[in-house]
Amino acid sequence: MLLTAEGCQQRRDRLWNAVGDDVEWVLIADPRHVCYLSGFWVNPLSFSNGERALLLLRRDGSSSLFADNFTRRTAVVDPCVSDEVIHAWYDHKHSVENRDDALLKAFEETKAALANSRGVVEGEAVPLTLLPMGAGDVDLGHTIRELRRAKHDDELQLLRRCMRAGDAGHARALEVIRPGMTEFELYREVQAAAQEAAGCPALVYGDFRANNAQVPKAGGLPTDYAMQAGDLFILDYSVVIQGYRSDFTNTLAVGEPTSDQQRLFDTCLRALEVAQSTLDTGTKAAEVYEAASMVLDEGGFGPLAHHAGHGLGLGHPEAPVFGPESTDVLVTGDVVTIEPGAYVPGIGGVRVEHNYVITESGSERLSNHKIALR
Amino acid sequence: MLLTAEGCQQRRDRLWNAVGDDVEWVLIADPRHVCYLSGFWVNPLSFSNGERALLLLRRDGSSSLFADNFTRRTAVVDPCVSDEVIHAWYDHKHSVENRDDALLKAFEETKAALANSRGVVEGEAVPLTLLPMGAGDVDLGHTIRELRRAKHDDELQLLRRCMRAGDAGHARALEVIRPGMTEFELYREVQAAAQEAAGCPALVYGDFRANNAQVPKAGGLPTDYAMQAGDLFILDYSVVIQGYRSDFTNTLAVGEPTSDQQRLFDTCLRALEVAQSTLDTGTKAAEVYEAASMVLDEGGFGPLAHHAGHGLGLGHPEAPVFGPESTDVLVTGDVVTIEPGAYVPGIGGVRVEHNYVITESGSERLSNHKIALR
Repeated sequence: MLLTAEGCQQRRDRLWNAVGDDVEWVLIADPRHVCYLSGFWVNPLSFSNGERALLLLRRDGSSSLFADNFTRRTAVVDPCVSDEVIHAWYDHKHSVENRDDALLKAFEETKAALANSRGVVEGEAVPLTLLPMGAGDVDLGHTIRELRRAKHDDELQLLRRCMRAGDAGHARALEVIRPGMTEFELYREVQAAAQEAAGCPALVYGDFRANNAQVPKAGGLPTDYAMQAGDLFILDYSVVIQGYRSDFTNTLAVGEPTSDQQRLFDTCLRALEVAQSTLDTGTKAAEVYEAASMVLDEGGFGPLAHHAGHGLGLGHPEAPVFGPESTDVLVTGDVVTIEPGAYVPGIGGVRVEHNYVITESGSERLSNHKIALR
Repeated sequence: MLLTAEGCQQRRDRLWNAVGDDVEWVLIADPRHVCYLSGFWVNPLSFSNGERALLLLRRDGSSSLFADNFTRRTAVVDPCVSDEVIHAWYDHKHSVENRDDALLKAFEETKAALANSRGVVEGEAVPLTLLPMGAGDVDLGHTIRELRRAKHDDELQLLRRCMRAGDAGHARALEVIRPGMTEFELYREVQAAAQEAAGCPALVYGDFRANNAQVPKAGGLPTDYAMQAGDLFILDYSVVIQGYRSDFTNTLAVGEPTSDQQRLFDTCLRALEVAQSTLDTGTKAAEVYEAASMVLDEGGFGPLAHHAGHGLGLGHPEAPVFGPESTDVLVTGDVVTIEPGAYVPGIGGVRVEHNYVITESGSERLSNHKIALR
């Protein structure tokens, strides 16, 4: 349930097909792209959070990972590369050197060897001091982001694992939410349940905020607010494993919901169902938005004031975006969310959300949480 | 208890004193350094984990932060800058653009305006595509890392907050550890308690592993191993708030410790105390290592097989390093750990650790957890 060597190889083959025949090597620097093509991902639950590696792929099929020794050590799995060039940043004995320099030193010899062959670098993410080489004329980052949309089997397996963890956190929330509990207490319950289901420490982030008739919209990390009967709680959160993530929502009633809250909830759920029915390879992203927004409109709660969802994977959000002005078109293998919501003074705020993978003839739902106020 | 505008101003003043008089502006790119000089820090518990901003400081005292709109939004506090240049990466309506490009676009106009004045950039962290400008002859990153060692008041306050959270997690571990509990269950207890004390979601990372007479050394994130009576558990972990972190250790007995385990523990604790007594402005880092190692040696458990500790702050580890070959010398305001340990076949592994700030006449201990097997 992590990225596989086979999946990495397939993704590299697609990359080589997407860059020019005269390109002998590519240098990958965006941490998401290094992960995508080699499985190398720095565990953010380590002191290497935020540190980076470089990945060099050669057309002959060989590949090298460049990193400092501790960045390498905190990787979740061994990278799928033919060799690793690790520079000792820190050895428990000497003074510690500049960690960024260690990465550049790891790359130094190879850089000299590459000077006479044609390659392209991911200039947006490569440090300025790394290279006096030209960045080439291929927009490598753009190329890879496009490739990332159609998910491979190992990616889908990993996403399913994130989904199961997300499901577990939602189930726990329904069990424990009660008047008097703080948002932050509920966060810790959800975090613990999601990690337990994930089987490993994992980043748990998202919206963990209560709202009410007076303040129907709130988002972001939890506060110490103690929830009161009559509040609604929008639980819209992600679980991250090896850089991939789930992202789905339920709205919970604190205590007994009012009939207006129930009607708002039912309308959002209907918007989700109708938007879901439009999902298919070739569907225009703007049409998914329109489908959700129309249902809210007809129910008296529209139009939808934010996007209706987006792509999901190593990034969040990423293409396709379900917005009224979006030019995206769904492709087979896109993993997406749909998340209609309405935030109504006098009633409160509701959002509901599922995640899906786009198939050749529609979609498959990936999230399995119960969507219900209670 | 977060970085303050006053602290940021003091740190900038020190930076201007450290670069040449002819430098009109500096461009800061390392996320740690952006935080250090402006308080801007992307909450890793958000979908902006890993995203970056740029900070431009001008000698006239003005300053600008460049970021995409969502990276800006997930900041823990408003940055201390005179203006912000935010490029809309994502607006809930349109297709999503390349996020790295959004940062570069935010910087575009300013870049043109800077072309005719002298500045230096943090080349190790600035993306290659950002600048066709020279990186100047000042090693900006090195300069800032040196400045970072002597902690300012707001940094110390923030570190104390991390320490209190770390204390709480250690107290919880002593309460709940028992035979049959998995490492991962204990992790979730510590994580919840530490966050509760921190008052906010926070990264909790470190070593959460049991060991025993057969396998006396283990490190890293927790596994599903169910602890058995006779095991030792090394709890060596960090809590991160606004990029700053605590890092201290206790070793806990699972069930009743043996007399050998107690003797090993007492020796490590004595090594900690003796090493602590050497802490002072001007102390050579290698001497701190020698002090700890000698006690272990005399107890029959030495020499110390790893460093005896290191600096702590926005990075982990960072200067000074308490290793036998270290050339570092302690300065007033250094925040450091001391962490002697020994891992003995037939007995098990023990490590103990406190955190300190170096003062003009010794040190002050920052961590207050109970160091005890039970």
